[in-house]
Amino acid sequence: MSVLITGGAGFIAPNLISRLLKRGDTVLAVDNLCRGTLSNLTEPLEHPRFAFAKVDLTDLGAYRSCLDGHTGIGPITEVWHLAANSDIPAGIADSSIDLRDTFMTTFNTLKVMAERGVRRILFASSSAIYGDLGERELTEDIGPLFPISNYGAMKLASEAAITAAVESFLESALLFRFPNVVGVPATHGVILDFILRLRDQPAFLEVLGDGTQQKAYLHVSDLVDAMLTIQARATRAKVSAFNIGSTDDGVTVRRIAEETVAVVAPQAELRFGTGNRGWVGDVPRFRYSTAKLQALGWRPSLDSMGAVRRAIREIAAQGRPR
Amino acid sequence: MSVLITGGAGFIAPNLISRLLKRGDTVLAVDNLCRGTLSNLTEPLEHPRFAFAKVDLTDLGAYRSCLDGHTGIGPITEVWHLAANSDIPAGIADSSIDLRDTFMTTFNTLKVMAERGVRRILFASSSAIYGDLGERELTEDIGPLFPISNYGAMKLASEAAITAAVESFLESALLFRFPNVVGVPATHGVILDFILRLRDQPAFLEVLGDGTQQKAYLHVSDLVDAMLTIQARATRAKVSAFNIGSTDDGVTVRRIAEETVAVVAPQAELRFGTGNRGWVGDVPRFRYSTAKLQALGWRPSLDSMGAVRRAIREIAAQGRPR
Repeated sequence: MSVLITGGAGFIAPNLISRLLKRGDTVLAVDNLCRGTLSNLTEPLEHPRFAFAKVDLTDLGAYRSCLDGHTGIGPITEVWHLAANSDIPAGIADSSIDLRDTFMTTFNTLKVMAERGVRRILFASSSAIYGDLGERELTEDIGPLFPISNYGAMKLASEAAITAAVESFLESALLFRFPNVVGVPATHGVILDFILRLRDQPAFLEVLGDGTQQKAYLHVSDLVDAMLTIQARATRAKVSAFNIGSTDDGVTVRRIAEETVAVVAPQAELRFGTGNRGWVGDVPRFRYSTAKLQALGWRPSLDSMGAVRRAIREIAAQGRPR
Repeated sequence: MSVLITGGAGFIAPNLISRLLKRGDTVLAVDNLCRGTLSNLTEPLEHPRFAFAKVDLTDLGAYRSCLDGHTGIGPITEVWHLAANSDIPAGIADSSIDLRDTFMTTFNTLKVMAERGVRRILFASSSAIYGDLGERELTEDIGPLFPISNYGAMKLASEAAITAAVESFLESALLFRFPNVVGVPATHGVILDFILRLRDQPAFLEVLGDGTQQKAYLHVSDLVDAMLTIQARATRAKVSAFNIGSTDDGVTVRRIAEETVAVVAPQAELRFGTGNRGWVGDVPRFRYSTAKLQALGWRPSLDSMGAVRRAIREIAAQGRPR
């Protein structure tokens, strides 16, 4: 199996690449190295079945040339499409960021797949496609889908482009709807943000909102394990969407802040804002159903709190990113 | 009220423009005149409260200049966004067509609205966002949304970009999910296609598929009436989606072919293909719920068969398009 991974130098991909190499795949990872970094790929780069190429996937000509230049890995049999903007607030300030990095990367990936006859895609979608549906339980077939961030909108747009491609040329598509994922190599997210700010200013930590925002978190090792389990066990529908997440109700920002302070700067004072939203497009609380994934017999090894605790230790140890 | 209408020279907009002028609005219509034509706007162009500008909405600079050049209509208070690719099979052959004409027109419209503080949008979405959900009843909040054409995908992407914009700057968005609409000025569609082919070759009419494909049709006059009714009566949610359509189960392609032949070329022989899909991305049959619209007290004046019959006569009378 020869696998193309987009967003290969980001947060999730390095964790996935290790597992794919272990199962015997040949892997070509591509990334524009804007948010990702080669230092995330130190181990895979030593591996004989791994190749990396720096390319901007929004440049279709460059994308094609890149694949033409890496025929050594053999015909690509499946694409794991993970490239996306990971800075949701930035995408709210400027909608062209998610258009380009979250959607056009998908659009062009489908284009090069069609041209090369690659017929299987595994896509890193997001719980952000659901928007704010209040207290309703978010199963994979809920509606209406009214995302409230450009990130969520362009993830939904990507899903839509993929399902249309299934009708025209793809053999199958798996849509993995990611929860909040924590772990290393951290490139973004609330824990990294807290740790960096505490390093700059160990006396206090200011938290956006009143700290009651509650979210479920999954450790990246569990996320990767869930994706591979779904690929191995899901029935062969042409298109399947799976929520991936923990089975608990999540943890509050207040608890994350407290845990981070305890590990990184025990003397720091915690300061909270008001309101239960950190920023525009941030859903305060939601009930994310993972029943479909659980029905495959999969359970996360860590609950939200366990994932957060492990990630705090890992991120604190990873040193300051470039 | 000063209204911007995109896709202003196409099929739906001229019908809407007459009604908006009648209710006292000032209207600026924009169109790239690729599929639309100025001859569709002969009447409005005589009206003192109407202006037209030719502009490619996918060119953001040109879009901005166009609006800057038409300040005579006063500050725009709402946008009716109707511009889109209307040739679904063309968009299946080349995904960049719907990306550009169906999605990027929406993306840029939201951009210029944000820049100018225009906070209300009314969007021509489509039943194509629902994809093929089998025999399930298509209510506005059904899921999952797996469109099977690039057209449907880019309409769903447009909805998503709009709902994200509601979270950031729009005051309200109405998403009208159009059914198959018939009437004049016809620019595309099965009836026009049949009539043009019968004019070229009055001896026979070849129908794609076995003719059992069944769809609901709405006459454009009813469509416009429904949109204005929804705008007037719907409760003030920030985002609302409404299926618009007839209340019947629709008519088969076979019946449309028979009616068209009867009006245009009574001697023509009907020839059917096999299978119940005309082309990739064409949903053979679906149950489109308009209960939400009916709850506003609205009913179409013509059922599917009535709409088709009237449209056949109108299109036969409109002469050959350029």
